[in-house]
This record gives sequence, structure tokens and C-alpha cells, in this order.
Amino acid sequence: MVNENQHTCSASSSSKSDGGSSSGSESSKDSSRCSTPVLDAERHERLREKMRRRQDSGDKWFSLEFFPPRTASGAVNLISRFDRMGAGGPLFVDVTWHPAGDPGSDKETSSMVIASTAVNYCGLETILHMTCCNQTKDEITGHLQKAKRLGLKNIMALRGDPAGEEWQEEVEGFNYAVDLVKHIRNEFDDYFDICVAGYPKGHPEAENYEADLRHLKEKVLAGADFIITQLFFRSETFLKFLKDCQAIGITCPIVPGIFPIQGYHSLRQLVRLSKLEVPQEIKDVIEPIKDNDAAIRNYGVELAVSMCRELLDSGMVHGLHFYTLNREVATTEVLKRLGMWTEDPRRPLPWAVSAHPKRRVEDVRPIFWASRPKSYIYRTQEWDDFPNGRWGNSSSPAFGELKDYYLFYLKSKSPREELLKMWGEELTSEESVFEVFTCYISGELNKNGHRVTCMPWNDDPLATETNLLKEQLEKVNRRGILTINSQPNINGKPSTDPIVGWGPSGGYVFQKAYLEFFTSSEIVTALLKVLKKYETRVNYHIVNVKGQNITNAPDLQPNAVTWGIFPGREIIQPTVVDPVSFLFWKDEAFALWIEQWAKLYEEESPSRMIIQYIHDNYYLVNLVDNDFPLENCLWQVVDDTFELLN
Amino acid sequence: MVNENQHTCSASSSSKSDGGSSSGSESSKDSSRCSTPVLDAERHERLREKMRRRQDSGDKWFSLEFFPPRTASGAVNLISRFDRMGAGGPLFVDVTWHPAGDPGSDKETSSMVIASTAVNYCGLETILHMTCCNQTKDEITGHLQKAKRLGLKNIMALRGDPAGEEWQEEVEGFNYAVDLVKHIRNEFDDYFDICVAGYPKGHPEAENYEADLRHLKEKVLAGADFIITQLFFRSETFLKFLKDCQAIGITCPIVPGIFPIQGYHSLRQLVRLSKLEVPQEIKDVIEPIKDNDAAIRNYGVELAVSMCRELLDSGMVHGLHFYTLNREVATTEVLKRLGMWTEDPRRPLPWAVSAHPKRRVEDVRPIFWASRPKSYIYRTQEWDDFPNGRWGNSSSPAFGELKDYYLFYLKSKSPREELLKMWGEELTSEESVFEVFTCYISGELNKNGHRVTCMPWNDDPLATETNLLKEQLEKVNRRGILTINSQPNINGKPSTDPIVGWGPSGGYVFQKAYLEFFTSSEIVTALLKVLKKYETRVNYHIVNVKGQNITNAPDLQPNAVTWGIFPGREIIQPTVVDPVSFLFWKDEAFALWIEQWAKLYEEESPSRMIIQYIHDNYYLVNLVDNDFPLENCLWQVVDDTFELLN
Repeated sequence: MVNENQHTCSASSSSKSDGGSSSGSESSKDSSRCSTPVLDAERHERLREKMRRRQDSGDKWFSLEFFPPRTASGAVNLISRFDRMGAGGPLFVDVTWHPAGDPGSDKETSSMVIASTAVNYCGLETILHMTCCNQTKDEITGHLQKAKRLGLKNIMALRGDPAGEEWQEEVEGFNYAVDLVKHIRNEFDDYFDICVAGYPKGHPEAENYEADLRHLKEKVLAGADFIITQLFFRSETFLKFLKDCQAIGITCPIVPGIFPIQGYHSLRQLVRLSKLEVPQEIKDVIEPIKDNDAAIRNYGVELAVSMCRELLDSGMVHGLHFYTLNREVATTEVLKRLGMWTEDPRRPLPWAVSAHPKRRVEDVRPIFWASRPKSYIYRTQEWDDFPNGRWGNSSSPAFGELKDYYLFYLKSKSPREELLKMWGEELTSEESVFEVFTCYISGELNKNGHRVTCMPWNDDPLATETNLLKEQLEKVNRRGILTINSQPNINGKPSTDPIVGWGPSGGYVFQKAYLEFFTSSEIVTALLKVLKKYETRVNYHIVNVKGQNITNAPDLQPNAVTWGIFPGREIIQPTVVDPVSFLFWKDEAFALWIEQWAKLYEEESPSRMIIQYIHDNYYLVNLVDNDFPLENCLWQVVDDTFELLN
Repeated sequence: MVNENQHTCSASSSSKSDGGSSSGSESSKDSSRCSTPVLDAERHERLREKMRRRQDSGDKWFSLEFFPPRTASGAVNLISRFDRMGAGGPLFVDVTWHPAGDPGSDKETSSMVIASTAVNYCGLETILHMTCCNQTKDEITGHLQKAKRLGLKNIMALRGDPAGEEWQEEVEGFNYAVDLVKHIRNEFDDYFDICVAGYPKGHPEAENYEADLRHLKEKVLAGADFIITQLFFRSETFLKFLKDCQAIGITCPIVPGIFPIQGYHSLRQLVRLSKLEVPQEIKDVIEPIKDNDAAIRNYGVELAVSMCRELLDSGMVHGLHFYTLNREVATTEVLKRLGMWTEDPRRPLPWAVSAHPKRRVEDVRPIFWASRPKSYIYRTQEWDDFPNGRWGNSSSPAFGELKDYYLFYLKSKSPREELLKMWGEELTSEESVFEVFTCYISGELNKNGHRVTCMPWNDDPLATETNLLKEQLEKVNRRGILTINSQPNINGKPSTDPIVGWGPSGGYVFQKAYLEFFTSSEIVTALLKVLKKYETRVNYHIVNVKGQNITNAPDLQPNAVTWGIFPGREIIQPTVVDPVSFLFWKDEAFALWIEQWAKLYEEESPSRMIIQYIHDNYYLVNLVDNDFPLENCLWQVVDDTFELLN
């Protein structure tokens, strides 16, 4: 009998033959095995397990707190901040809950949507805050159900600030965070990891410090998995609190909340809200420089670094939680100086994974969305099952349509004016379009003196890997082979290679050369003649906006173009060129001409008509050179094509 | 939504985006795609589709007819003949049906069991003959159900010889082959491919030639897919028959039955049974040499070759069916001289596939059974699903127990006396066991002057690939590292490599070096110390008969040790070292010491006690060198071990 469930880790079938198998001096601790290759063990763990693993291994970690933005453009910025700060390797981020801001709604600025975007689109382990006072059980349950549906797995259970001046306990209602913890455990069993707040100086409303410690213990006993503390100004404050907690039997992780002082006003505001007192020695430094933001920030960084060092050196602290105030500089600086900002260019897979629990096993994607991973995630969000190990095996793709190119998490980071500067206030010919592509690749200024740092198909500057192909790409773009995606061939580089490596160390990574571009029908006609010579060495798919499709893919099978071989594991093949998905991608790729570029110009304007002409008449082409150990022949294919045309 | 069914080829999801995708000058004919990589298209086709594909491509094919053996040892011989003749590339074999021989039973000599063994254990496309006269519908249905259950997909529907002298039609019964064809189509719809017999000279009992042609057409109209003819002596006989069939509207394939004359008596017997007349010109040659078997066979080969050439040259014949009389030499010779014996050392996968329809998608196996594929098939015959693309993904292995080491299709081809000559009439020490292993590897005579051509774990001489490692293997076996399985590392050889290649051309194959052996606990202790130095480079599993198990496999994951990269396809990884399966294999590997070797000797004899001691005290070890691009380090591991011991 064969286990058909891809997702469960089943205990190995018991039988006479493995009855005695788990003894022996170095035997594996258990005989269960996971049905998917564990490339990145943390990807399969809950947050509390990740914390435990880090504690056991001694790897110090950090986490980052953000609040939801007020405006839609703020949301766009916050999401790109998630991407940038996510690169430093936080164990998790958390998003605060503001009852006044409609936090559970579908607005792009709601806590719920921001947290969900962090999980699903930025691949970050995320904690959603939730406050309970002045809310009904049904409201709370509704929020929790929605959070679960969106793939959120962690809740920070808080009381929140009472609405009125004089707060009254409600019978039957939620009066304390502990009520929310109990409610989550009652209604959702062990689904969520629950975090609660600790107050190193005692909660301002508690009778006293000891009573507050007892409340904290109640929250843990009710089912909280770990504690994050309120900010504090001296390491002794936290270390005393930690010992006091342990003394009354609190054994779960307690994470210090670090607040790098970033400015005079933000400090004052926070102090007022938290009812904390700033120590005199800090006031003494800050007051004289209160109008010098840079000086205050430098001081704040110093202060945070030295406090964090004391905490870490105590041996009792395994992770640090940062109150970022949605700013990058200070926190990043503190982490870099602590040596905890681990911007490792290597990745578990060549593409950014999503943190939604149902995508845990996902380890294959079509190459087409390589520069638009958020769009791929969006268009596959309704899938119940994800390709695991093989594309053809588990996925008959039904991609959601992408109608709204303006969803905040898919939107270009650049405003219209900047795009016009990059892509041309006025286009005069197809060649002026070629020039935009060429400038994007070469990094040279365009004729109006602007650098082209993004394209409709690539919202970021050229990847380091693509730089390997820069010279050739530049040459072909100049001649109207408008490239939007490419990768060099790789014949077994170490998995630790800083540019092309991914996955665990000790392995080897491979790639087939890939080139994807838009081009005119004249060039396609010549190209097809040239491709005949290359027979099975080169696979091609050529399609226009109407869906006229020309391919030599055998039996419409996917072609693996990136794979890795690792010690003691099955082979991972995370990227494929899939003929079926290509037809879904082509709709998006063609639409981006119009949605992102043509619409910058007036209707009926010559610029818009040039883009429209390209959209209507060009073909989207992808080429794979199957002979990865030899020199990439795709440049020769293009050269042969131009030679035939001349 | 994702298609969860691994086995069906589903049409690609229809959507706006692929609405126009099938137009264009070179577009794929249909938009369906198979969920498994089509490495070997024929593996997924029915026999009639394979015939059509060969006819379309112009590749001439041949098939081989066998009859069931009379004795159990005859069955063992026939199965190894299937293996040898299967290597020449027949499109199918067929097994005749002898009502007197209990053909539908579970006896090892029954037609049913022989045909099932050909399909399941030898991986041959197989037609089971079935006769219907003197049988009830229920009996016939029972046979057909059993055939289906066993994985047989093709039936040759025959009337059979009536039991009595004067044959009487039975009302309601099966009187003609056409009744059986109809019955199969009624009861089993399109499940079986059906073949019927054609008589180039007319059936001996038919009123006349024309009436017989009409009967043949009836059989085809009733649902037969193709026709194999009775033997004949002149190509004109067949070609006339073929034209006559076509003239009355028979359009299915008609395959000539070729009978290479192999001896005077067998010819006379066949002629008597088939009521054919031997042409005078043949009689004139044969009669004078009737006592010279070799001369007759040479003449028979000549005759068959020239007749086959005429048939093939006519352009109307695409395949040849050979009546082998269960003999190899003449048919093989004819085929070789025709250039149709395609003993291609390359294989679709590195191991021999089974032809059972439910194993069609199987493309991963543990390496342990590499030399015992029939035992692997036997122990997994109850599986409903087979690993496809990844081992860990689809298989939580529950292996059937192997209790009966004497099943005819698992049995050694050599009788006890020969085994004793090879493995020692009398063993005097563990070292005399080392010597047997060493002689098997080196090919040298043992001290009694016999060549060791098989071992309990390898019933065949050393594989060509293993020869690459011969020198080192010999050295370590001499010192008590008793190797039973190994492969060299390979870093991207062409898939057409004559020794290690497999799969379609244009690809590259890879391997990690593998070594599996029995050895003493002293050596294991030293080995473990040495292995520490190699860290993750070498994965090991070490187990004794009691199941004490020592491994460094991460999370009990399987390790892919053979894989191939092909144009336009996903990666195929057909062989894994799987920690869980290893524990099932170790039972079998240890049991073979006793079942195949110890039991050759008297109980309590010193020889038997030596084998028993090894069985009880040695460890089974496997080692994988993960660093396939570097020189195999496993020999260094063994050298280091011996150095540590000295």
C-alpha cells in the first residue's frame, strides 16, 4: 500500500523487519519520515518550533514589528520594505492592530491585509496582533477565521485600550488578554501559535509588579507559547524581569522588545502611550540635541547596540524583537553592528517562497514569473495543492486571471512621473522602445539623462545573475530582441556560489540557458528557419497575443531548467518551462505592455499607438538550450537569425 | 484547482487564454498533456498503438511465440530465455494455450502463469492465447478476469482443437474463435487488444479459401485488432493472402507467422498438426540431410532469412512473428542476419521495467534490488500506486515479505551441484567465503578450478558497469569487504553511452558512487571512526540482522543516486538509496546467506556454521559519495579503515 497523501509526515510502516531498527549508537531518533524532501527544515515548522531550534543551536535571531500604513501608497512602500528587511533574515515580523483603523477589513491598509501580504507575498513568518476589548466573541472569531483562511498562523493576543476614559469590566465579554488566549485555544485548538505581552516594569494599570507577573503566568497557562516584552531602557530591567518570571514558573521563551531611539518626537509619543519613564541619563543626552535628528538616531543606535550586547552576553537571551516604527535605517544599523543582519545571497530555492502553510511543499514553479513572483502567487492563490517535486505530476494549471494590475502588492514601486522619465515622455518609433530595453540592461542613461531601473516585466534592477549575460543581452535588445527574462547555463556550480547558488551547502546547482523576449513577426519567421538546424537541442515556444502558438516541445511536457543535487537528498528541480503555463503567462506579459506602459500616454497619442502596435503584432518567444554542459548556443541562434535577415 | 490524479492524461484546463492556442503553423496537434514524463512513449501505449506507431515510422518489428514448459525446471529455463530474447527487442511475445495442461491454473507451468511472468517479471508486452471450444462462458470469463488481474492486456482468440474426433457445434456454446472475440468485447469492452489467427492457405476445416477469408473478416468485424498468420513456406503465399484480405475489406494489421525450420522431426510434427504441405523443393533439400541437425538448421535459417527479406522488401509487411518452438538459436540468427535484433545496451531506465499496466508510471526504485529486480517486483506487487518522479513523495513503502525464495521466477538458474562447485563443497573459514566473493569479481577460477558466475545476491555475471570498478572491488573483497552492489560515480555522460547510458538520446546521465557490502563488526567499528572525517560527503547506513541500525541520513530522506537530464523534459531520478526500504532489503539480503548458501550444506556441518556465523554477526553496509563531480572517495574510506585497523 502506498501513502497517497503528499502532505502528512507518516510514521514508517511498521513491520517485522524494522522492529529493531532504532537502536544502535548513532541511529536516527525516530523512524518517521517526511514525504517531501526537507531542503529547508524551518519551512515546515511552526514559529514556536523555529524558536526552539534556534535556541538549541545557539543561533541568535531577531524579529521586526510594523504598524499598518495610513494610505494606499504607504502600503506599497511598506510591502517593499518587507521585501528589503526580509532579506536580512528576521525570524518573523509582526503587524499591530488598530481598532480605529478597521483592522480586520479587506482594505489595503488594514492589519489583516498587511499581515496576509507579508505571509503570502513576501514569504515572511508573521504574527498578527489582535486586541479584544470592546469586541464580541463573534467578531473575534470572525477575525480569527479570516486570519486562518489567509494563511496566518500566529496571533499576538492583547487586551487593547479601552474605549472610554473609565474602563469597566464586561460580564461575558473579553476583559483581559487572557480571555482572548482562552478563546483562541477553545475555538481553534492548537492551530495558532499565541504570543502575549510582558511588561518588564509591570503593566501601568496593574496593582503592582508581582500581580502583573501573576497575570502573565495566567496568560501562559491559558495557552500562550511565548512572550514579547514592552520596550525598556536598561538591560537590567529585562534581565530582572526574566528571572522573576522564571522564579514563578514561567518557562516559555521571553523575548525582549528593543526600541532604538530614532527621534525626539517619536520617543516622547511612545513614552506617553506606554506610560514609561525615560531614565535621566538618556534625557540628559537627548534634550540638548533634540533638533538634530541624525545625532539622536546615532545615539539611539549606540544605545540599542550596547543594550542588545548586554542582553545577548547574559546568555539568557536568544532573540531580539525590534520596534521599527516602520523605519529601516536605525534597526538595520543596529542589527548589522550586532552581526545579526544575515543578508545571505543564497536562498533555499532560486525563487522566494511564500509562507502560507498550504504552500509549504511547493518546490516547482514555471520560470515565466521569475521577476513577478507576487503575481504568480496571486494567480495561484486558489490552488489546493502545489507542485511538489515535479510540475507535470501535481498540477494541471488553472491560473486565476490577472485583471487588476493595480493591486497594491503587485503595483510598481515607481509613480507615473518616474516611469515616464525612464520609459520616455514621448516615443517616436519601435526603435525608441528598443532603446528603453537596452538602457535597462546596460545601466546607461537614456537620451533624457535618466537611468531605467525597472520595466513593466521587472520592477527591480537587473538581477546579479542576469549581469552575467549583460553584454549579449544589450546587443540583441538594440536589434529588437526585447528580452524580459533570461538565465545562463550552469554545469554544476557549488550550491554555495554567491551568485547562482541556492539550497543547502555541499550540493551542486545546474541550469539550462533560457531566453525570453518579444520580437517582430519578421524576426520570428527567420528565427523559425534557424531553429530547424538546432533540432532537439533548442526547445522553443512562440506565441502572439491572439494565441497563435508554435512549439517543438515533446508531448507538451515541462522542461526542467534549474535543478540542484544535494547530499543525502532527492533532486530538487524548482524551475520549469511549461508549455501550458506559458499560455497563461503570455496573457499577462502582453497585457503589461498596455497596463503599465501604453496607459502612461494619452489615448490616440503616437506613443500609445507605438506600444499598442507592438502589443498587437509582436510575438513572445522563449528558448531553452538543452545542452547545458556546452557553451550556450542561444546567442548563436539569434546571430544566425539576423544573418538570415540581412 | 489542481488535478490530483497522477494517472490520467487530462486535457489542459480550458480558459480564455488558451482559446486560440492550437492554431499556428507548427502547433502541437492537441492540447492535452500527460501527467507523467513520457520518457518512453511505447510504455504508455497499447499493443495496437505500438504497431501503428512502428508502421508509421517504418521501423520493422518482430515478435516471438513460446509454448508453456512441461516441468518446473523448464519454467525456470523459459523465464531466463525470455530475459535473453527480450534483450533483442521483440514488440511482444505470446504464450500458447494448451487445454490439456491446465492452462488457466496457478501452476508454474500453466500458460497463465508463464504469460503473467513474462509481463510482470520480464517486462515483455505479452499476448496470452486462449481457446474456447469445449469451455463454458463462465470458465472463459474466469480466465479473462484472471488474465486482467495479472496485468495481461492482449488475448489471441482461438477456437482450439475440438475434443472429440467428430466435432459438433454446440448451441449456446463457443463454436468458433469469433464467438470468443465477441464474448471478450461484450464482457470486457475495449480492455483487451485481441489478436486472431489467419490461414494463408485457408483453414484446413474451412469449406474453401474464400469462405475462410469471410470467417476471418467476421472475426475482425467482431472486434479483433490484428491478425497473425499460420506458418507458410513461400512469401508469395502470404502476399497473395494479404492482398485477398485487403480486397474484401480487412484493414487491420496482418502479421506473417515465420517458422524457421530447426530440425527434421519438429518440422514433420508441425506439418502434421497444421495439415500443411511442405513444398517439394524444401523436401528435396531436407530429406538427404535429415540426420544432420546442424545442416538442417543452417538451411532453415537461410530459407527463413530469404523469405523474410522478400516479405519486408514487398513494402507490405511491417512485422514478423516467429514460431520459436522455445528455442533461441535459429530465430536469433535469422533476426541478426535481417538486422532486426536490436540488442541496444541503452535502456529507457537503468533498471528493467515491468509491463504490468499499473506499473506504467513507475520510474523510481531503491538501488538495493538492482540485481534482484524480480524480487523487488514480487515484493511490491500489491502496491496500488508506484513512485513516480520522486520516491519520498508517493511511497511509504510496505514491502511484501519474501518467504519463498524458491518461486520459479526468483530461483537461481543454477542447480545445487553447480552452486556447490562455485561456492565451495566445503568451507573452512570466513576467508574461504572472502575467496568466493573475490573470484566472482575477478573472474578467476576458484581453487577447485571452477568459475564463479553467480552469487546469492547476483544471479548473473558481473554487469559491464561494475567492471569499471573491478580492480578495486577485487582488492576489498579479498580483505573481507564482501561487496554485493556498487556503481561508479558519473558526472554527465551522454545518455547514449554504451555502458552507463539510458533514456532518450541528447541527454546526460549522472550517478553518485555507491558501495554495498557485508563486513565484520571489527571493520564496522573502524569504518565508523573513519566516516566521521567525511562528514556529509558520505552517507551511510549500517545494519545487522537484528536490525541495529546506524545512519547519518538527514531526516531519513531518500538520496537520489542515479539521474538523467533530457531535452525538453523534467529530470528523471530512477534510483534512490532509501533508508526505510533498506531495512526491508536487509531482511532479504541476510536471508539469502541462509536460503541460498548455508542450506547447500548439511545441518551442523562446518560449512553451514561458517555461513550462519557470518549471517549472525556481520553488518550490511551501504555508502554513498555525494560529491559526484570529484573522484570517488569510497575506496579511500575503505583504505583508511584498513589503515586504522593495522
